[in-house]
Amino acid sequence: MKKDLSGIWAPICTPFTHDDVDMEKLERNMEIYSKTPLRGYFALGSNGEACMLDEEEKINVLGKVIKKKGKDKLVMAGCSYESARGSIAFAKIAHEEGADIASVITPHYFKKVMSDEALIKFYETVADKSPLPVMLYNAPGFAGGVQLSVKAVVKLSEHPNIIGMKDSAPTGPNIFLAHVDRKNFSILAGSANFFLTSLVMGAVGGVLSLANLLPHACHRLHQMFQQNELKNAKRLQQAILRVNQRVSGKFGVAGVKAGMDYTGFYGAEPRLPLLPLSLQERKNVQLAIDKFLQEYPEFSFTARH
Amino acid sequence: MKKDLSGIWAPICTPFTHDDVDMEKLERNMEIYSKTPLRGYFALGSNGEACMLDEEEKINVLGKVIKKKGKDKLVMAGCSYESARGSIAFAKIAHEEGADIASVITPHYFKKVMSDEALIKFYETVADKSPLPVMLYNAPGFAGGVQLSVKAVVKLSEHPNIIGMKDSAPTGPNIFLAHVDRKNFSILAGSANFFLTSLVMGAVGGVLSLANLLPHACHRLHQMFQQNELKNAKRLQQAILRVNQRVSGKFGVAGVKAGMDYTGFYGAEPRLPLLPLSLQERKNVQLAIDKFLQEYPEFSFTARH
Amino acid sequence: MKKDLSGIWAPICTPFTHDDVDMEKLERNMEIYSKTPLRGYFALGSNGEACMLDEEEKINVLGKVIKKKGKDKLVMAGCSYESARGSIAFAKIAHEEGADIASVITPHYFKKVMSDEALIKFYETVADKSPLPVMLYNAPGFAGGVQLSVKAVVKLSEHPNIIGMKDSAPTGPNIFLAHVDRKNFSILAGSANFFLTSLVMGAVGGVLSLANLLPHACHRLHQMFQQNELKNAKRLQQAILRVNQRVSGKFGVAGVKAGMDYTGFYGAEPRLPLLPLSLQERKNVQLAIDKFLQEYPEFSFTARH
Amino acid sequence: MKKDLSGIWAPICTPFTHDDVDMEKLERNMEIYSKTPLRGYFALGSNGEACMLDEEEKINVLGKVIKKKGKDKLVMAGCSYESARGSIAFAKIAHEEGADIASVITPHYFKKVMSDEALIKFYETVADKSPLPVMLYNAPGFAGGVQLSVKAVVKLSEHPNIIGMKDSAPTGPNIFLAHVDRKNFSILAGSANFFLTSLVMGAVGGVLSLANLLPHACHRLHQMFQQNELKNAKRLQQAILRVNQRVSGKFGVAGVKAGMDYTGFYGAEPRLPLLPLSLQERKNVQLAIDKFLQEYPEFSFTARH
Repeated sequence: MKKDLSGIWAPICTPFTHDDVDMEKLERNMEIYSKTPLRGYFALGSNGEACMLDEEEKINVLGKVIKKKGKDKLVMAGCSYESARGSIAFAKIAHEEGADIASVITPHYFKKVMSDEALIKFYETVADKSPLPVMLYNAPGFAGGVQLSVKAVVKLSEHPNIIGMKDSAPTGPNIFLAHVDRKNFSILAGSANFFLTSLVMGAVGGVLSLANLLPHACHRLHQMFQQNELKNAKRLQQAILRVNQRVSGKFGVAGVKAGMDYTGFYGAEPRLPLLPLSLQERKNVQLAIDKFLQEYPEFSFTARH
Repeated sequence: MKKDLSGIWAPICTPFTHDDVDMEKLERNMEIYSKTPLRGYFALGSNGEACMLDEEEKINVLGKVIKKKGKDKLVMAGCSYESARGSIAFAKIAHEEGADIASVITPHYFKKVMSDEALIKFYETVADKSPLPVMLYNAPGFAGGVQLSVKAVVKLSEHPNIIGMKDSAPTGPNIFLAHVDRKNFSILAGSANFFLTSLVMGAVGGVLSLANLLPHACHRLHQMFQQNELKNAKRLQQAILRVNQRVSGKFGVAGVKAGMDYTGFYGAEPRLPLLPLSLQERKNVQLAIDKFLQEYPEFSFTARH
Repeated sequence: MKKDLSGIWAPICTPFTHDDVDMEKLERNMEIYSKTPLRGYFALGSNGEACMLDEEEKINVLGKVIKKKGKDKLVMAGCSYESARGSIAFAKIAHEEGADIASVITPHYFKKVMSDEALIKFYETVADKSPLPVMLYNAPGFAGGVQLSVKAVVKLSEHPNIIGMKDSAPTGPNIFLAHVDRKNFSILAGSANFFLTSLVMGAVGGVLSLANLLPHACHRLHQMFQQNELKNAKRLQQAILRVNQRVSGKFGVAGVKAGMDYTGFYGAEPRLPLLPLSLQERKNVQLAIDKFLQEYPEFSFTARH
Repeated sequence: MKKDLSGIWAPICTPFTHDDVDMEKLERNMEIYSKTPLRGYFALGSNGEACMLDEEEKINVLGKVIKKKGKDKLVMAGCSYESARGSIAFAKIAHEEGADIASVITPHYFKKVMSDEALIKFYETVADKSPLPVMLYNAPGFAGGVQLSVKAVVKLSEHPNIIGMKDSAPTGPNIFLAHVDRKNFSILAGSANFFLTSLVMGAVGGVLSLANLLPHACHRLHQMFQQNELKNAKRLQQAILRVNQRVSGKFGVAGVKAGMDYTGFYGAEPRLPLLPLSLQERKNVQLAIDKFLQEYPEFSFTARH
């Protein structure tokens, strides 16, 4: 049964206290998100620092997100491993935990030999054996420059258990959207920087780190597009781009966490080698959010509690 | 107590049969290596496909390498995790298993924020808490382009529990060798392509994937350098570079494994997304080795059994 | 007096016969273009192979484009030199020839030291001394990866003699559009791949190599956007992206020229080291155009003559 | 008649006064160089800022270098143009001026299509028509990342009018040296960073920007290698690498010019967009040279006058 993936997805952050996963803080964040119009969550992704969690931590985090997800929300579980075997094994666990979708980044450690042929075989094997439908995750910024080609995505989009792609490449998904039959393959924008333009070209939604701190703003932008308010949408998109660049763009996950701390969530510290923001950097993040909320005060009420 | 790291290290490959680690084949490879003049082994490195092994497989492989290492040989264990926490945890396991050194690649998933400050803090934290002495592993080809700066290496070389660096960047370690006090910090070349020139500039040895298939040739090159036979060394280095490029350079780990199959070891198949070589590719690897052994027949007798 | 730059610009190709500029073929192309709804021309740009023309050839080509431009059309002249001195000198010549605007690519030979400071000083000096208003030209694909930062563009947009930017970076101009006051600074999309999305975000037009072969299709897309026919625009944009990728995207200038030959212009051969397309490549270009014209037959009548 | 290219080549800088070429300062520099053991000069190269000189300036500079070259010294003239036509035309001029060799960098503006096929055709056409023997110039740092492949160099080395290659890629020429028949093809190291190791592997000399300020030190390193003083050579190479990094490595041409000012030559200012060094940067260059001369005082006497 095909799921409707349209809408905003938050790539859930993992709060740490003294380098341990803080399940209580995660639970409180989920309680707030569950009352927002978010479509769903991406657990164990890049913003979740999944590459730095051990297996037990990953299962605990995923379990908590699923338990607290709220009504009618979907959970996409990061099942990214360098081997097909690893991705399949975790997709089975995620399925047992109750996740809806498995997201798998392009393998990249052996970048030199990650040809179309290798990536297609990898994803087809994972999709054949995964009990969950699979989302491709194209993110050269995290994957050492490896990215999916149009040819590979067109081929993979025909697999019955591959349902879509999250595209975080800085060029955005426009090229893929022009080549893929989007009836059976949903494309999600992977950055707030190009969310509106991706919608214009056919994306059904976005997995946006900014939704971790400003979920209502992201949702409203989607709504404006759906209601054909293009001028308003452009203005909001530009404000969103500006704040996004000064938070996630400049500081990555640690910036998103500092922003969450400021808008009423529990961001907490990242895990080493990610460094927490300095006081000055933290102030810069807050200033960027203040500036955004001065222009759009309507998005400040819910997140701050 | 400082260990002498001089000599040739083989970055041990992990043979798979039907996608499972084949411990028997690994054991037979180790039996041959144990009778060669190799200085030691790098277990759980890139050539060992460690990023695709689960924790249990890693411990089994490491245990086997240590058990079969042969007299007076050292074992460096890959303890590469994206988090300091993960690297420390595995260094403790490797220490219990009997490894001598912990090798840790630069973390790289969050490439954008891997500043000198982040990398220095990461390695200092790992070195503070690791029961094993730590080797830095600089390999931008695997680490998505992340590399250690001269400044970071100079700083880290002062840490009492950081004993050296393996450098696999295509430029070779010459710049580091000119800036670091090499009394307390040993640099190993990470590619046969620049082994001789690294020795000339002060490296003490090399971790060479070619040593997996042609250990004697690599050892002889080191010996020629030590005995000041520079003209012979140059000729052998050039032949080694040519075969290395056509095996590991062109095909990566799968090429090294095909080469091992040909010279009398058990390379076996790589794990997906690495693809095994096609028949034609396999022939090309064999031709490159044949060409090398025609020029240097003295290196053929031991490996073929 | 501020000029309205809105619309489609063709980056005029330079036809060669036996390695000499073929002024007659250039003239015939201009005669056709002059009857199209193009806003203007970019002479001596990348598609004009300006980097391979000598000074005399450049002046002849520019003179011809200006003489044959047609009523109310603007001419932007490529004044790209590695030195400020060179750009200024040519801007004076272009002014005397009757050009309207000077376009200057980021200098890039000394990439390592092309800091914000250097690029800002360069452009400010050129703009101070150029008799023509200056357009920044951001094209990392031609400029060895050098690109203008948001900070540099914001600063340069305040200069009274800098009137805009053509952005050919694969990410498109969205980030610049969100940061620059666009009342006094016009941004043009530099690729048909992201033309519609650039318009949505505030670009006033595009300099599109595809306009060299399919000027009416490009113009119609702009019109659809202006008339708020967003669904039709999306469909046409996707078709344009597909043909653009198979012509300019795959083959560069030589592909554009082969496409021009097919749609009724004189593309002719490129200058070495650019290679003319093989017969098979030429057929692939023609097939891509046929496919586009099957979907949009209304754009075929004018160009074919 | 084959020329012996062995030795140190200085890539002559072009001094500017108020943005004009200062022929008098150039002449004085040449008078000093002519009394050194330099093998020859590379005029109109990257360090000569040739890409920023107009045709008349280029001819004047080249003429001056040739006139003042000193007995038995060779002059290599930069004949780098994006088109084969341009390179051939200037090689004819350089020949008339009395140059010995034409050096041509890889064309790179159209990077995307600079295949082996295009580069081979380009160089073969230039070599066919150039009255001067041609040196390939591989310098991805200036050429936007374009570099010659082993396959292309092997093919081009067979052309009777291509006599060698200058390699400035950070990996150094070792891979080329292992694949090319060096009887008819001389390879020169293009950076002092890897001069000694290139000699060890078969290079015949180097075109070293450091020779502009410290010609005797560079020459002595070559001599040590020739006299098989490998330990002394290693120590000097490391000191040379350190000073080279802090001068040319950090600041490029402007750093080399500041260094020349300090060691008794006329560096003078670079041309915009190159920026002159700040006072602090200039001091850092001087400190680096002081440190080198403290370790090697024997190289200070000649340059300072």
